[in-house]
Amino acid sequence: MKMLSSGELEAALRDIGARRYHRLHPFHGMLHGGKCTKGQVQAWALNRYYYQAMIPIKDASLIARCEDSAVRREWRSRLVDHDGEHDGDGGIARWLKLTDGLGLDRDYVTSTRGLLPGTRFAVEAYVRFVREKTLLEAIASSLTELFSPVIIGERMAGMLANYDFISRETMSYFDKRPPQAQRDSDFALDYVKQHAKTPEQQQQVLAALEFKCSVLWSMLDALAYAYVSPGHITPGAFVPAE
Amino acid sequence: MKMLSSGELEAALRDIGARRYHRLHPFHGMLHGGKCTKGQVQAWALNRYYYQAMIPIKDASLIARCEDSAVRREWRSRLVDHDGEHDGDGGIARWLKLTDGLGLDRDYVTSTRGLLPGTRFAVEAYVRFVREKTLLEAIASSLTELFSPVIIGERMAGMLANYDFISRETMSYFDKRPPQAQRDSDFALDYVKQHAKTPEQQQQVLAALEFKCSVLWSMLDALAYAYVSPGHITPGAFVPAE
Repeated sequence: MKMLSSGELEAALRDIGARRYHRLHPFHGMLHGGKCTKGQVQAWALNRYYYQAMIPIKDASLIARCEDSAVRREWRSRLVDHDGEHDGDGGIARWLKLTDGLGLDRDYVTSTRGLLPGTRFAVEAYVRFVREKTLLEAIASSLTELFSPVIIGERMAGMLANYDFISRETMSYFDKRPPQAQRDSDFALDYVKQHAKTPEQQQQVLAALEFKCSVLWSMLDALAYAYVSPGHITPGAFVPAE
Repeated sequence: MKMLSSGELEAALRDIGARRYHRLHPFHGMLHGGKCTKGQVQAWALNRYYYQAMIPIKDASLIARCEDSAVRREWRSRLVDHDGEHDGDGGIARWLKLTDGLGLDRDYVTSTRGLLPGTRFAVEAYVRFVREKTLLEAIASSLTELFSPVIIGERMAGMLANYDFISRETMSYFDKRPPQAQRDSDFALDYVKQHAKTPEQQQQVLAALEFKCSVLWSMLDALAYAYVSPGHITPGAFVPAE
C-alpha cells in the first residue's frame, strides 16, 4: 500500500463511483426511462422515504461525535437542508410532496409499515456505520454526493418526460438538491484529502465510499426483486393497487 | 389488544411462520427442487455462511444480557452447537464442509469478501436486534426454529436427490440441526409463554418473530435478485464460474 497523492485519491474515489454508484442499477434505467408502472414508482418513493427520513439522524450522529466546531458548523447545514426552518420546509417535507403526488397516504408512508426489510436493513446499516466507524470514514461515506447531481439531472428529465403522474411540483425535492450536494461533497472531499494521512486511512476512505455505494445499490436490489416483473413482494410490504 | 391465552399465543406464532417463514420463498422452491445451477447453490452457501458465522455472536450477546443463570446455562448449548468442542467440530465447521464440497475456497468464504450487501445488512440487523431489544424480544426472535425441522427435511431430501455435487457428507450440517432446533424452540416457546405477561409484551413477541422472518426472507430476496436469471450481481460480490 502506498500513499496516494490528493489527486490520485480523488481519482480512486471517482472510479468507485463510476463502477458502483446506483446510477448503474437496472432499476434506475427503468425509472428514468419511463418503463415503470405507477405502482413501481410508488414503491420506490415509499421505500426511499425511509432513507430520506433517516438522513438528519445520520447527520446529527456525525455532528455528535465531532470535536471540531468548524466541521460541526459546516455539517449543520445538512440538518437545515433536510429538516427545514419550519413545518413543511426541508427535504423530508419535499419528499412527502412526491409521495402525496403519487397518491400514497402520508400516515402510511411515515409509519414505514410498508417498507421492504431490505430497505430498512440497508438504511440502518448506514446510520450505524456513521455512528461507529471513525469520523474520517463517516465523512467519507457521504461522498456518494459527488455523483448525485448527474443522476438527479437524469431523473428530473426522464421522469417529467415519461410519467403523466409526475409534475415539477411533486419533484421539487430534486430541484433543491444539486447545489446542496455540490457544496457538501466539496467540503467532504477536501476533508478526506486533508485528514487521510496514511495509506491505511486512504484505504478506509475508499472502503467507506464502497460501503455507501452498496447501501444504495442493495436498496434498489430489494425494490427490483419485489416489484419488477414477476415481482416477489416480501410478506407485509406495500402492495401497489395498480 | 387483549391478553392471549398460552395456546392462542402459540397459534399466532405458528400462523406467522405459515405466512412469513422463508420456506415459502421462491428461491427455496428452486433450491430444493433441483432447479439451481451449481453456481447458484454456491452463492446460497457462501451468503448463508455469514449467517451461520454470526449465530454464536448473536447467542453470546443474548447470554451477556441475561441475569438468570438457568437461562444462560440453557442458551449456552447453542454456543456448543455452533462452535463445537474442538477445531473442526460444530455447526460452523460443518457449514464449511458444505462450501468445501461445493468447490469454494475456504479463505474466500470466511473472508466474507464475496457477500451480497443485502446478506450482510440483514444478518447485522438480526445481531443488533438481539443486542438492543428486550430480552423477551431477543428470545422470541429465535422462534423461527419452530419451523426449521420441516424445511431442513425438505432440503436434505431435495438436494440429495437433485444435485450430483451434493452428498450426505457435505450436508452433515443439516443432519445435526433438527433435534437441536426442537430442543431450542421448545425452550424459547415456553419462555415467551411464561414471560409475556401483558398484551403489549405478547405483541412484542409476535413482532419479534415477524422481524426475524423478514431477516431470513430478505437474505433470499438479495440472493435471488443477484443470481437467478437474468441475475444482477451487486458490484464486488461473488461471481460463479459456471
